[in-house]
Amino acid sequence: MLINRHTIRIEWGDCDPAGIVYFPRYFEYFDECSRALFERAGLTKRDMLKFYGLGGIPVVDMKARFMMPSRYGEDVLVESSVVKWGNSSFVVCHRLMKGEALAVECFETRVWVAPLSGDEEKMNPQSIPEELKARFAVPAPDQNQ
Amino acid sequence: MLINRHTIRIEWGDCDPAGIVYFPRYFEYFDECSRALFERAGLTKRDMLKFYGLGGIPVVDMKARFMMPSRYGEDVLVESSVVKWGNSSFVVCHRLMKGEALAVECFETRVWVAPLSGDEEKMNPQSIPEELKARFAVPAPDQNQ
Amino acid sequence: MLINRHTIRIEWGDCDPAGIVYFPRYFEYFDECSRALFERAGLTKRDMLKFYGLGGIPVVDMKARFMMPSRYGEDVLVESSVVKWGNSSFVVCHRLMKGEALAVECFETRVWVAPLSGDEEKMNPQSIPEELKARFAVPAPDQNQ
Amino acid sequence: MLINRHTIRIEWGDCDPAGIVYFPRYFEYFDECSRALFERAGLTKRDMLKFYGLGGIPVVDMKARFMMPSRYGEDVLVESSVVKWGNSSFVVCHRLMKGEALAVECFETRVWVAPLSGDEEKMNPQSIPEELKARFAVPAPDQNQ
Repeated sequence: MLINRHTIRIEWGDCDPAGIVYFPRYFEYFDECSRALFERAGLTKRDMLKFYGLGGIPVVDMKARFMMPSRYGEDVLVESSVVKWGNSSFVVCHRLMKGEALAVECFETRVWVAPLSGDEEKMNPQSIPEELKARFAVPAPDQNQ
Repeated sequence: MLINRHTIRIEWGDCDPAGIVYFPRYFEYFDECSRALFERAGLTKRDMLKFYGLGGIPVVDMKARFMMPSRYGEDVLVESSVVKWGNSSFVVCHRLMKGEALAVECFETRVWVAPLSGDEEKMNPQSIPEELKARFAVPAPDQNQ
Repeated sequence: MLINRHTIRIEWGDCDPAGIVYFPRYFEYFDECSRALFERAGLTKRDMLKFYGLGGIPVVDMKARFMMPSRYGEDVLVESSVVKWGNSSFVVCHRLMKGEALAVECFETRVWVAPLSGDEEKMNPQSIPEELKARFAVPAPDQNQ
Repeated sequence: MLINRHTIRIEWGDCDPAGIVYFPRYFEYFDECSRALFERAGLTKRDMLKFYGLGGIPVVDMKARFMMPSRYGEDVLVESSVVKWGNSSFVVCHRLMKGEALAVECFETRVWVAPLSGDEEKMNPQSIPEELKARFAVPAPDQNQ
């Protein structure tokens, strides 16, 4: 299984008056990590949307647990992988680590959808190509650490 | 049970290149709605932190389902209430409505914690005062609609 | 001259570890205030882009002075008006007030541009319709205060 | 003069419905670049605030010109340097480059201030130590490129 490791520097502007990361920022980090995971599989978001005629891969379900706060100036490591494939949806797991400790864990379910036309209220899910799924089945060459 | 209804205007800068709300922004909306719910109960965040000697009410667990997209220029209504009280934690439910339709549902579990000192890694949960819980037990005078 | 007054609640997530508004958030406030000014002139952003076949009104020049900090829980009032019209550009002035005191002043120059096609690097400015400028020439009925 | 070069990946969530960077995000980028410039001079923000007993280095004046849009997936390079030192203030210049072209230029004036106590409305400027200014006078060893 392909795993991507992405380092994130916690910035001053990501932290709140309590001095810790304002929690919605974690979801921006994780969205960035999903993008980085897809790039590790050889797909930039721009190319992916164009190549497959996609509208996007919007999040439809999100679960997160916050176990330990983070502060500005810290570098944290996020491990991301696709842990489940459905017909038109998939689940990405992000594990934000501070050293050996798991600080935040997040599961985001995303759907493979056609472009929205105009003011449509329903997203139109598409079957995920098997060729795409296959890209995530094998570890990256330098992954075993 | 106290319910707060808060209208949010979706701004241009909250939306992404697909033209819909970038999902981490929803969690900023919901944090704003939790603040507004507490004010409806008579407590500004600033006064609450000072009065109870609190460090904050950080989110430790988050679940959300996104059923329908929203776009810039739309006004959405969020209904918020505390649906569960524990000894030192509580669960806020937010229901983001587009007309009669439920577009996003979110459950955030928050903890009542003492101020962090220095670089502590552990948050220190405190018992939630019964007096505070009581404020959320009764509907607001103008609530039954 | 049309002036719009827009109240903004400073949210917890807009403030940084120093306890004051993280300055890039002010530019989000002002973008919201420009949107509100145009609505006061009878134009929602969505309708405006559609009606005039616009790509947007991007900011090309920005000047701001920050004289006084603001903190979460405060309500601030922003007065916005178009202070200069060019052929294809205009300048919006925003004055963020704390009571009688001017806390932040900002001048944003925006351009009336055609939609970007593909990966174009140059924005394509258009002449601003006189009809549109006229909407901003007269005070709103309830404006003189 | 010390110059820092910092690469920024434009993320999906930084872009608006027009498909280009939402302009307030540029100021978050530049704040990150100022932080990186100080680190290049040997000072993390956390250590700097502690060591000098500072409250922060808030922005009091900001000028920016936006000449060319940027889109998600692009990598841009920002060159940052202190272009002017006053007694208690300094000016950082950021030049955001797309290849050889200057896409955005920004001048931020920051002040060296003591910590705010309580609800003070005035920031209290301090003299900037000469030792600190000296750190920015010489190029970094690997700078001449």
